[in-house]
Amino acid sequence: MRRFLIVGHRASTSPGFPLADLAGGAGRMDLLLTAANAALLVAHDLRRDAEADLLLLGPPDPPRAVRLEGARLQSLGPDIRGNAGLIRKALEHSSRVERETSPGVFSSRRGFHELLGGIPEPVVHLREDGKDIREVELPRDVTFVLSDSVDLTGEEEAVVAKRRVAICSVSPRSLHASDAIAIVHNELDRRHRA
Amino acid sequence: MRRFLIVGHRASTSPGFPLADLAGGAGRMDLLLTAANAALLVAHDLRRDAEADLLLLGPPDPPRAVRLEGARLQSLGPDIRGNAGLIRKALEHSSRVERETSPGVFSSRRGFHELLGGIPEPVVHLREDGKDIREVELPRDVTFVLSDSVDLTGEEEAVVAKRRVAICSVSPRSLHASDAIAIVHNELDRRHRA
Repeated sequence: MRRFLIVGHRASTSPGFPLADLAGGAGRMDLLLTAANAALLVAHDLRRDAEADLLLLGPPDPPRAVRLEGARLQSLGPDIRGNAGLIRKALEHSSRVERETSPGVFSSRRGFHELLGGIPEPVVHLREDGKDIREVELPRDVTFVLSDSVDLTGEEEAVVAKRRVAICSVSPRSLHASDAIAIVHNELDRRHRA
Repeated sequence: MRRFLIVGHRASTSPGFPLADLAGGAGRMDLLLTAANAALLVAHDLRRDAEADLLLLGPPDPPRAVRLEGARLQSLGPDIRGNAGLIRKALEHSSRVERETSPGVFSSRRGFHELLGGIPEPVVHLREDGKDIREVELPRDVTFVLSDSVDLTGEEEAVVAKRRVAICSVSPRSLHASDAIAIVHNELDRRHRA
């Protein structure tokens, strides 16, 4: 399993967030959804062995975790506006106990520490000052942690520092999360050809 | 200059295409706009040395070419819905003579043959059966040709066959255009560090 945990610092936690203003009113939900697509989609298909864990930390009711499981998803598509509907539905469920709110979409009230604590694989922190990913040995089962358009807070850094086995960088440039994920997949697709 | 020419076989050529249905009613305009973002954006900035040439071939008034020049763009952002407004405005201009319809956005009535003919750099065709891009020497100034969710037609293949210097592949998997572009940029960013 390749898992991508993306921290959305401003992402709305209201099930009524505006579909027509994903970048603004929904707190850069567009960025999270584009990253989820990079994590889960190939042309005309889903990556069945991938998962995107979205951590939503914006108002009004944080923290919320929405997990998208490639193996079970049915209605995730390239159109992020359509996918936003899956997130809205997930946010209607506000319990700490995780529930599958649509096929392959799992929702719970969990923060970064708890979400990361429940992940079995080795955790790799993607950060610009990390070691070049092309030079790092990576297992088939691995979780990558990324931030949205702002860096992790000091507290979040401390949480991931306790779990990570490596800090990796994918590029000499500072990239959007979706582009970084595409590059990570490419590196692993090349190493683990079917 | 790194240029990406993306052929949108079904992309709407109406200046009134629906902003709320970019994937459906606008003919996979979402795919073209996501690809343009991968071509032109890094975190918090534009790639000033990049260009995205979108070829729109859907109804009602094809062919139309919209060029997005990184060096001059002012209002391209991560939110594709906002960027769709730039395309709509560009489509209001239907002359064969190219005009700058917004800063950095150039519109004209041109087809694949004509658009490709006006490009000075060597042309690389991105296709799944091409040679691995990591093994191909590439100049700093280069144009990559990609198709949207459907393959190039036989006629389009013939047009690009006359111009291309190489056929390259980026992945063992079949990818969305935006992910392929992110991987190409990464390869070149690594080779041509500032």
